[in-house]
Amino acid sequence: MVTFTENEPFSPIKYQYAVEKILYKGKSQFQEIMVFESPDFGKVFVLDNIVQLTERDEFFYHEMLTHIAMHTHPNPRKVIVIGGGDGGTMREVLRHLSVEKAYLVEIDKKVVEIARKFLPFVSSQLDDPRVEIHYTDGAEFIKSINNVDIVIVDSTDAIGMARTLYSEEFFNNIYKCLSPDGLYVTHSESLGFHREMAIEVQNTLKKIFPIVDLYSFPIATYPGNWWSFAIASKKFDPRIPNKEQVPGTKLYDHEVHKWVFLPKRLYLRIMNEDVQW
Amino acid sequence: MVTFTENEPFSPIKYQYAVEKILYKGKSQFQEIMVFESPDFGKVFVLDNIVQLTERDEFFYHEMLTHIAMHTHPNPRKVIVIGGGDGGTMREVLRHLSVEKAYLVEIDKKVVEIARKFLPFVSSQLDDPRVEIHYTDGAEFIKSINNVDIVIVDSTDAIGMARTLYSEEFFNNIYKCLSPDGLYVTHSESLGFHREMAIEVQNTLKKIFPIVDLYSFPIATYPGNWWSFAIASKKFDPRIPNKEQVPGTKLYDHEVHKWVFLPKRLYLRIMNEDVQW
Repeated sequence: MVTFTENEPFSPIKYQYAVEKILYKGKSQFQEIMVFESPDFGKVFVLDNIVQLTERDEFFYHEMLTHIAMHTHPNPRKVIVIGGGDGGTMREVLRHLSVEKAYLVEIDKKVVEIARKFLPFVSSQLDDPRVEIHYTDGAEFIKSINNVDIVIVDSTDAIGMARTLYSEEFFNNIYKCLSPDGLYVTHSESLGFHREMAIEVQNTLKKIFPIVDLYSFPIATYPGNWWSFAIASKKFDPRIPNKEQVPGTKLYDHEVHKWVFLPKRLYLRIMNEDVQW
Repeated sequence: MVTFTENEPFSPIKYQYAVEKILYKGKSQFQEIMVFESPDFGKVFVLDNIVQLTERDEFFYHEMLTHIAMHTHPNPRKVIVIGGGDGGTMREVLRHLSVEKAYLVEIDKKVVEIARKFLPFVSSQLDDPRVEIHYTDGAEFIKSINNVDIVIVDSTDAIGMARTLYSEEFFNNIYKCLSPDGLYVTHSESLGFHREMAIEVQNTLKKIFPIVDLYSFPIATYPGNWWSFAIASKKFDPRIPNKEQVPGTKLYDHEVHKWVFLPKRLYLRIMNEDVQW
């Protein structure tokens, strides 16, 4: 059996997948792109040798990244997804019928092209008339827009190429582009392997936003797996949903919304680095 | 760099670890045993090419396996650990000062021997005068004892050699050996990769015990990671702790106790197999 061993430079465990067939392998201006068929996970989408999503479990990540912020805001109309060129996050955003305009800001046009061709289970909603795609740098794009209800950053690893999407300057510009009741959400790596990254994102966001929190969900195909998400809000407490749950989700519901947030003492222990692991 | 690739036959992802040094490699009557030093995880303990624990994160599993049942029972005095020859589960059991007698029933004497020699961070409490070690088959041992407050099964994979420790017959014998307010707990594989196993354990236990539940925690070094535990009780609801929390835990506290149980609708979705993954 042919195998693919993931090369996530910051992961202490390398993940090895069986490969049935490589469907695409090429290079864009920004990165190496690969799609392979796995006997266990269906289609697997890889950038720079790091697995981005698998057909079997992509909804774990996409639902969790999207629906906490989207259900905290009672009426999100204008939404930006930065990164996420595969379309999975946008698919979840569009379940919210309040959305009038959803910008996909993906720096790499080739990612969208490949996703449209090989990954219809995530990309199929990209032709929705509410979607407007911009092939540009998200950090620049948000400087040119305002009154946004939700910004979702769906980038590659926080410790890789997407590092600038976790800077204080970028968070400041997100704050400025959001409406007075807006929210921002991003993933912030694994609490198992990269807790220091999750802590840093929390601390940087707290300099700017009045409400900052962390939630988590286990994602089996991301190294370290106890995946963390950072959420920042101008007005609404993200632990409390403010709208009816949308249909069509597999994991998300209002109970799960409350559950994904850590118990407060555990959150404090993680943030204080009292407990080493 | 030398590497070790885990060979868990039922895992669709193989985990590869960097190896600094192999400290022990040998064969017992029952299995192959290895201990290696990892630059990332400290000492790693391996049985039949499957990682059992790492020095860095063993407390995730041992605390979660032990403290839910041990805090649900208000006064556990007589406890059995089946398997767990490394001593990590016993270390957690002994934090409870109510415990008068704790049986370790490990089939493989060599596991205890190797743990004592190379893994003192888990084995160091095995000389506590409350501990009585039996090198025998746990399924036989429980037939000869009664009035036990807590039985903890800390076996190798539920789908490997330890399969008989998940049979209806075995669960019946556990029920019989427990006191009228006793509890039983075991791990039941990953909700990411082996959900069907977790479902089967729940369903089998429900034939025998009046109260059966499932809780979970992400464990980064076990394949599939969203690790599930099955808990069965004669009297107490395991979602509610009934005694003060013991000192010395890194993750466990009363808030975490309640949090590790799934929201009820998510539990039902997982059990009904409505959602495929």
